[in-house]
This record gives sequence, C-alpha cells and structure tokens, in this order.
Amino acid sequence: MQKAIRQNIFDNAKHWVYEAGERIRDHMQQQFQIDTKSNPNDLVTEVDKATEQFFAEKIRSTYPDHKLIGEEGYGDRVESVDGTIWIIDPIDGTMNFVHQKRNFAISIGIYSDGIGEIALIYNVMDDVLYTALKGEGAYRNQDKLPMLSEEVKLETSIIGMNSILACENKRVNEKRVQQLIKDTRGTRSYGSAALEFAYVAEGIMDAYITMKLAPWDFAAGYILVDEVGGMTTQATGEPVNVLTNNTIVTCNKQIYQSIIKEYIEFK
Amino acid sequence: MQKAIRQNIFDNAKHWVYEAGERIRDHMQQQFQIDTKSNPNDLVTEVDKATEQFFAEKIRSTYPDHKLIGEEGYGDRVESVDGTIWIIDPIDGTMNFVHQKRNFAISIGIYSDGIGEIALIYNVMDDVLYTALKGEGAYRNQDKLPMLSEEVKLETSIIGMNSILACENKRVNEKRVQQLIKDTRGTRSYGSAALEFAYVAEGIMDAYITMKLAPWDFAAGYILVDEVGGMTTQATGEPVNVLTNNTIVTCNKQIYQSIIKEYIEFK
Repeated sequence: MQKAIRQNIFDNAKHWVYEAGERIRDHMQQQFQIDTKSNPNDLVTEVDKATEQFFAEKIRSTYPDHKLIGEEGYGDRVESVDGTIWIIDPIDGTMNFVHQKRNFAISIGIYSDGIGEIALIYNVMDDVLYTALKGEGAYRNQDKLPMLSEEVKLETSIIGMNSILACENKRVNEKRVQQLIKDTRGTRSYGSAALEFAYVAEGIMDAYITMKLAPWDFAAGYILVDEVGGMTTQATGEPVNVLTNNTIVTCNKQIYQSIIKEYIEFK
Repeated sequence: MQKAIRQNIFDNAKHWVYEAGERIRDHMQQQFQIDTKSNPNDLVTEVDKATEQFFAEKIRSTYPDHKLIGEEGYGDRVESVDGTIWIIDPIDGTMNFVHQKRNFAISIGIYSDGIGEIALIYNVMDDVLYTALKGEGAYRNQDKLPMLSEEVKLETSIIGMNSILACENKRVNEKRVQQLIKDTRGTRSYGSAALEFAYVAEGIMDAYITMKLAPWDFAAGYILVDEVGGMTTQATGEPVNVLTNNTIVTCNKQIYQSIIKEYIEFK
C-alpha cells in the first residue's frame, strides 16, 4: 500500500474512531437494551450494532472498493484477502461494556492484500488510542511505544489469560497451563482481547494467550504488537489466518519459544 | 468512635493520601530501584517504603495514641484490636507498580476497637479515590456508590480471582474452583487486592476470591464493601480477623452462600 494512501485511510479511520467513541460515551449515559445471542457469554447491545453500522456507512461512502469484516452483520462476505479489508470489532469486551461500563475498546485492523497496514484500538472510556502503521511504529496516544524489552524472562513475566485456560478442557493439557501460571510472576485477565494485545504492545504484560479469537478480536492487535517487535502466531506456532477464528499467542519474542514448546500441549 | 472525631481523622487521611499519591506520581517519572524480598513475587520498591514512612510520620505526629500496622516495617507491634489502628498498604499491587506503572493503590483501613470506621483506596495513576465511613456509605471520588444489586445471579456474574486458584494446590479442591469458573459469566484478574475490593463495591465485579491476604491488603476493602451491602468473610465462612492473614471471599450477598458452600471445598 502506498504511504500517502495509507496515511489518508488512517487519518479518516482515526477521525471516525474518535467520533464513534464520543457517540458511545453519550449512549452510556442513557439506558441501553441488551440483546443476547446464542449464549449468555455473547452479549450484544444496541450500541454495538449502531457503532458497526456507523463504520460501515463511513467506509462504503468514502472507499466503495474496500471490504468490511465485522462482528455484527454489517460486513461483507469476504473469502479472500485480496484488496483492502477493514476488520472491525465495534465493541471488543462486550461483557465489560455491559457489566463494568468501561474496559472495552473499538478495534480496527486494516489489511491490504493480506498485509496488516493500519491498527487502531481505542479504549473508549479512558480515551486512550493505540495506533500503528506498518513499518512506522506503534503509539499510545501521542507517545511512541518503545520496542519490547530484550531482558524479559519467563519467570519474571506477567501473562494475560482467562482462568478458563487452566481448567479441564478438550483442547490443551491444562496441567501444562497450570505449570505456566506457577512458573511466571503472575497472570492478569482484563476481558478485552484488543486491550490485552495493546497491553502486550506496551510491555505491561509480556504475553496474552487465548484459545479462540475471531478476526475482529485480533486484527488490530496483531499489527500493533508486530510494530514493537512482538510475536503473534496460532498457539500451534502456525501463522495466524486473518479470515478465520484462531488460537492466539501474542508475546515478547524472548519468551515465545518457551510458551509454545513447553507449556501449550494440544490434546 | 464519635462522628466528629472520625470526620477529623478521615479529613486528614484523605489529605495525606492525595499528598502521598502526588509524591508517587513524581517518583514514577524518575528511575526507581527495585529491591526483592524472599521471593520474586514479593517486590518492594523504594517508593513503597518511603510512602509508608510518610504515613507513619504523619500519624505519629498528629495522633500519637494511634497504632499502625503496615507492610514495610514502619508500623507498631500490634497484638490486640484495642484503640485506633491504621492498617496501611502504601502500594497495593506492587507487581503492577513495577511492571505496569499503573493499576496499584494506596490502601488505608482505620479500625476503632476492632470496628472498621474509615476506608480509603486510592488508584494513584487514575486519580480515583474510593472512600467509606461506617454507616455513611461508600464513594468513588464524589459519587456515592449505590447498594449492590439484588438481581445478581451466579450464572451472570463476573468473579475476580487469580488463575492460580484453578491450579492443583494443597488447600482447596481446584476442580470445584474450575466448576465455578465455568458456571459464571467470566473471571477477571487485576493484580491489586485493594482495587479488586473496590470493583466489588462498585458492582463491576460480583465477587473477589483469594486464598491469602494480609491485613493491609483487605483492611480498607472490607469496610468499603460492607458499606454497599456486600459480604466479606474468610473462605471458610468464618469472620475475618483483621490482625492476621486470611483467606477471603468478598461479594454480592446474592451469590455468597453459593460460592462458599458449593464451590470452595477445603482439603
């Protein structure tokens, strides 16, 4: 993607993210009606849908040849990575949105022919915007994020994961995950994949591990972490596929091999 | 404790907390030297010690008959709950302080003859102060916190706990904890006990469970949660002892019996 074109898309995306954030904060003041999908963990609110629709309209009127992958049904049927694709989660951390009224984010990753070019993760209530342009580094608001430390060791690292990973399950050996928890300094769980990627990019967590993420959950975070020298793959070690659900390990490179090889054992 | 006396102590404590918070934020700009106690999970910084010393000096010069229990060694040897006791954690969430440079708190609980009278939990970097006076309700900054919802159900609740609780251990049946994780909407882990109490008091988490807390970790949170109608006991169901380490369950009353009786099974 040409630099000038990318900058133009980024400038618009940033403008729209701030506008959408303001709308969401306004909505928070009002009552909102909660809808449920197939299971109670999958809450969707009116705001979630309205926000995706907002982005869909902006993108289609400004960039009619771009495609959109979104969670809420306003996207396109996308079967190849060709062209420019916006991958959007209008509210990442819906459970936090409903239950906490904070700690959620708008997540936007923009890919050109499969290459991650632009990332925006906006912590709406804290008004903190993480951004990245491919090859130009990552930012937290105006501050450029430093490259991830080369001094990180597993035994002093903080790992983001949901405690469900340590429970008996059909996918991975939970005993190895439990050993990882014991071998590190501690774990954290914030309930928003996009923000957890951002915290890895900031170096305030050294890894984030999860067994199922949709493209809109990781599309932006993947680019952001890459720009500070972090590593993101499927938990098997295979490359991430941005069009499908993936297991994800995103982390500081210093501890990547150890996590993948010693602690994640598929059944 | 007389109301006027309590108000005077609270006003001073609040003033000192803000002053200490400002000093900490100033220190954050500088380099700080990290000291380690017996194990790498127990980091102590210069700032931690300086902050406790700051409170110790203020308390001793203003209230020479008050006693102090603190983590960093500037406190008194306290063997009974008689009199007025300040129980202080100058930096609750030391690991967050060191690793994240945010998400930590100053925690102060003030007890009179064993009764919790005053609570202050200050999220230093976010500049959010939680306070409570016995019988007068709890506040987040200027906003009075509502009583905890009577509509909370276990299956839609969010539980704060460290993932270590789901791991094989000598104290509780981890299978029951794993079942709790599966039966609720989700878990969160923020790495500061004081803030996790505050989140329970705010209703943004419905419970916080932990197998070992020192008095300075829970002294303020206990009072804060009590003021919004929440329940705090040892994980056995026994009352908390403010002079010793305790297992802790602090939660919305609607789910207390279920957590204690169905999911926490001591070995």
